[in-house]
Amino acid sequence: MKYNFSDRISALQPSAIREILKMSSDPQVISLAAGNPAPEAFPTQAIADISKQVLEQNPIGALQYSLTEGYPALRNSMKDFTFNQYGIGKEFDELIIVSGAQQGIELTCKVLCNEGDTIICENPSFIGSLNSFRSYNTNLVGIEMADDGINTDELEKALASHPNTKFIYVIPNFQNPTGKTMSYEKRKRVYELAKEYQVMILEDNPYGDLRFEGEDLPSIKSMDTEGLVIYVGSFSKVLSPGMRVGYLIAPQDVIGKVVVAKQCADVHSNMLAQIICEKFMTSYDIEGHLNRLKEIYKHKCTLMLSEMDRHFASSVHYTRPQGGLFIWCTLPDHVDMIDFCKRAVTDYKVAVVPGSAFTVEEGVPTQSFRINFSTPTDEQIVKGIEILGKITQELC
Amino acid sequence: MKYNFSDRISALQPSAIREILKMSSDPQVISLAAGNPAPEAFPTQAIADISKQVLEQNPIGALQYSLTEGYPALRNSMKDFTFNQYGIGKEFDELIIVSGAQQGIELTCKVLCNEGDTIICENPSFIGSLNSFRSYNTNLVGIEMADDGINTDELEKALASHPNTKFIYVIPNFQNPTGKTMSYEKRKRVYELAKEYQVMILEDNPYGDLRFEGEDLPSIKSMDTEGLVIYVGSFSKVLSPGMRVGYLIAPQDVIGKVVVAKQCADVHSNMLAQIICEKFMTSYDIEGHLNRLKEIYKHKCTLMLSEMDRHFASSVHYTRPQGGLFIWCTLPDHVDMIDFCKRAVTDYKVAVVPGSAFTVEEGVPTQSFRINFSTPTDEQIVKGIEILGKITQELC
Repeated sequence: MKYNFSDRISALQPSAIREILKMSSDPQVISLAAGNPAPEAFPTQAIADISKQVLEQNPIGALQYSLTEGYPALRNSMKDFTFNQYGIGKEFDELIIVSGAQQGIELTCKVLCNEGDTIICENPSFIGSLNSFRSYNTNLVGIEMADDGINTDELEKALASHPNTKFIYVIPNFQNPTGKTMSYEKRKRVYELAKEYQVMILEDNPYGDLRFEGEDLPSIKSMDTEGLVIYVGSFSKVLSPGMRVGYLIAPQDVIGKVVVAKQCADVHSNMLAQIICEKFMTSYDIEGHLNRLKEIYKHKCTLMLSEMDRHFASSVHYTRPQGGLFIWCTLPDHVDMIDFCKRAVTDYKVAVVPGSAFTVEEGVPTQSFRINFSTPTDEQIVKGIEILGKITQELC
Repeated sequence: MKYNFSDRISALQPSAIREILKMSSDPQVISLAAGNPAPEAFPTQAIADISKQVLEQNPIGALQYSLTEGYPALRNSMKDFTFNQYGIGKEFDELIIVSGAQQGIELTCKVLCNEGDTIICENPSFIGSLNSFRSYNTNLVGIEMADDGINTDELEKALASHPNTKFIYVIPNFQNPTGKTMSYEKRKRVYELAKEYQVMILEDNPYGDLRFEGEDLPSIKSMDTEGLVIYVGSFSKVLSPGMRVGYLIAPQDVIGKVVVAKQCADVHSNMLAQIICEKFMTSYDIEGHLNRLKEIYKHKCTLMLSEMDRHFASSVHYTRPQGGLFIWCTLPDHVDMIDFCKRAVTDYKVAVVPGSAFTVEEGVPTQSFRINFSTPTDEQIVKGIEILGKITQELC
C-alpha cells in the first residue's frame, strides 16, 4: 500500500542534524547535546515514599479514570504556588494539568490557530515547540534576539505586517537554546504590543525555578490585566520529566477550549504522577529542594564556563546564563558550524546540538551550537570542553 | 480580549447531553453512565509491589526523559503478547506506546487526514474517537450497524462515493456504545473493501481481552497482509485507565509518522506506568488476572441482563454483549429518548447516556441509550435497573 500522510505531518521532515543526535547516544560519546535534568537532581527517596503511601492508602484514586482538568488538589496547590511565588493568576484565570509542558504548548496551538495563521517566535527557539506549531501548518515568523531577549522593534513590525498573528511564543527565562533572559523592560514591551495588536502571548517557563544567579524578574503573566497571556509551567526540570506533568494557566475561556482538546488528546494525565506532584508540593520542603537544584546547576554551569574561558579560542562567543540548562556558542563567520559539530562527534566523540535545529525558518544557516551543562558529570564537562576547545583552536 | 479560537475547536460544542452527564456525578445518583473498570478489577497489590521495586532499584530510569517510541522492554513484551494471543504483527509492522488508546486514535487521524478528508465510522460509535476526528475538521460518514456489525453493503457504497476516505474506524469487539461484535465474515469483508479501495482501517480493541462468553474472533489486523490496518490496544480496561498507557501496531512507515506526531504531542508517555505495565505483563499471571476480570464482568453483565429481562417493558430492545462494558437499549418509536434519560436522572436518580452522544452526525435523533455494567455494584445494578424498568413500564 502507498501511504498518503497529511500535509501537516509530511512537512515535518527528519533533518540533517538527526544524524549527529543519533551519534550522541553512543556510550563512547560525551554528550553535551541533551536537555535532561542531572541524575542527582531527582528526589528519588521522596518520590518512592509518596508512591508507596498513595498505592497503599488510595490505590483506586491513582488507578481509575479521572478528570480531564487534572487532579483537583494538584490544581489548587499549583494555583497557590504560582500565585505566591510569581504573582500569577487573576480572577479570570484557570489552571489545567497537562501531560508535560509540551502538551500545553501543542494544545494552545490547536485551540488558537487555523492552518496558515501566524505565530511569532523568538529566533532561535525550542525545537519541540516549533515542531508542534509546524504540525498544525501554521506560519512561523522568527524575531532575532539580543542578549536581553527578543528585538521588540522587529516584533512590532512583524505584528503590523502579519494581521493573522494568533500569538507570540516566548521563553523569557534562560531560553532554550540560547540561555538568554528577557529584560524587565522587554517583558513589559512584549505585553504592551500584544495588547495593542490584540494577540495572545504563550509564555513558556520550564526553567524559571532554576535561577542560580541574579534576581528573579516578573513573569509576563504576572502583568496580565487583560487576559492575554497563557502561561505554561512544568515539573520536568524541578521534579521529574519521566512523569510528564505540566500545567497551563490562562483565562477561563481559553482553558475551557484546552479541556475539550485535551479530552480528545489523552482524556487526562497520568494520575499517580499527578498525586506524587501534589504530595511533593504540599508535604516536602520545596524551597530546600529548589535550592539544592540551583546549587547543582550553578556548580555545573560555573565549571563549564570557566573551562570554556580557559580552552575556547577567543573568536568563539558564548552566553553566560543565570539559570536553566544551556549555553549558546557562536563560531566566527569563516567556520562551517555543521562541519564543526560533525567533526566533534565523529572524530572527537563530543556531541553538541547544531544551532540549525532551533532556527524558526528551516535551512537558514547559523554559526551557533547549543551546549548542555545539566546532564554531564563534572569529569565529562572538563574533558568535553577541553576537546571542544582544541577544535576551536584548530578551526577558529 | 475577544478570543478567536480555531475553527476545529469551535466546532466541538458542549452538547445537551452534558447536562445529564453532570447530574450523574451527584452521589445520590446511581450512575450507569460511566465506562470505568470495576474498582475490584484493579490488581492494586501487584501494582504497589512493582512500583516499590522499580523506584528502589532503578528510580532514574522511571523519572528521566525517555524515548518517544516507548519503553523498549514494554514494546517487546506487547509485540510478543499480541502476536501470541491474537496473531497480530507482521514483518512490516512496528509498535509504539501511546498515552492511552485515545492518543493513538488522535495521532492516527493527525498523521493521515487533511482537513475535509473522510473517515468512515460505525454509527453509533465511541464519542471520544468521534470528537478526536472532529477536532481535525474531518468529514465523518457513519454506517449503520446490524447485530453482527457494520453494514458492509453500505460501507462499500460509502467508499465508492467518498474517494477522499483515509480510513475506516471500527471497534469489532463489544463495541462502545452498542456492545455488538462484528462477525468473522464481516471482518473479512471490511478488510477486502479496504484493500479494494486502498484505504486504511483503524481497528480499536479496548475490550478484546474481556470476552466472557463465546469464542474469540480473529482481529482484522491478524488478516493484514497488505499493511492496511492500524491496531490500537489499551491497558485501561485490563490494568488501569489512570495510568494512560496504550499501544499502536501499524506498518513501520505509519509508526514513523506517529512517532513524529507524538514527539510534538507529549514527547513520551509516563515512564513509571510503562515500566509497571511491562513488569505486570512479564512477571505476573496475566491469564489468571484476565480470567478474574472476565468473571467479574460476566457476573455483572448477567445480573444486569436478567434484571432487565424481569423489569423492562417488552417493547424495549437491548443487546446481549459477550464482553466489554456496555449494553445498548432501544426504546419504542413513540417514546422521547432524551426525555426518558432526563426523567431517569432528575426524578429517579438513575443516570444512563443518551444515544445521541454517540451518533456520527450530531443532532440526528435516536431511540437508544447506553447502560454500563462494569462500574456499579450489584446492589446498584439491581436497584438501578428496577427503577429504569418502572419508567419503561410507564412510558413504553
